Amino acid sequence: MSEFKYKQVIVLRVDLRMSKGKIAAQAGHAAVSAAEQARKHYSDWWKAWIEEGQCKIAVKAGSEQELLELELKAKKLKLPTALISDRGLTELPPGTLTCLGIGPAPSDQMDKITGELNLF
Amino acid sequence: MSEFKYKQVIVLRVDLRMSKGKIAAQAGHAAVSAAEQARKHYSDWWKAWIEEGQCKIAVKAGSEQELLELELKAKKLKLPTALISDRGLTELPPGTLTCLGIGPAPSDQMDKITGELNLF
Repeated sequence: MSEFKYKQVIVLRVDLRMSKGKIAAQAGHAAVSAAEQARKHYSDWWKAWIEEGQCKIAVKAGSEQELLELELKAKKLKLPTALISDRGLTELPPGTLTCLGIGPAPSDQMDKITGELNLF
Repeated sequence: MSEFKYKQVIVLRVDLRMSKGKIAAQAGHAAVSAAEQARKHYSDWWKAWIEEGQCKIAVKAGSEQELLELELKAKKLKLPTALISDRGLTELPPGTLTCLGIGPAPSDQMDKITGELNLF
């Protein structure tokens, strides 16, 4: 995916064993919320990402702890983030942290945080 | 989910047997693109949906044909839509239509189109 100058990464917990429907809804939530952060606070990145075709990559985290550490790293680099907690109406307890959206942001900055994570 | 006055529905093809990572990325794409349509053209719906917590539901379509018919129905009701085609860089042929985002829009209008579809 190196041709994309901007990307968004959605980090999803694999330890929760979410259903495909839950994955789709939670990933959608992370994508919209992180994109909104970018649109409000990094509008140049957001615009460039939209124009480039919204590159999105889904990667794995093994635990809530790992999700929180990634959020902290992204915030230190001042990248847009959105941590998603489930309402708990269906398959998970209320408040469960399911995934983290990071970016859109320049790919080289994104790779510092998520470059080593396995594809979901 | 009847407490939500606004919702977004992501319709994903089950006949493609997409991986979980593909599902997450494509659902994210549909969610962001349909939300952008709403933000630009139906900003009251978009705002109300964001404030309500962005209700999102993932449902199944059995074929490309079904996806296209749903898009047509949604367009006839003047609901925001985003039909997503895959770039074909990984597991699918280029241009494959993978999913459709509809809404955010008022739940009663959404239900006319997607109310009978099975959860993904």
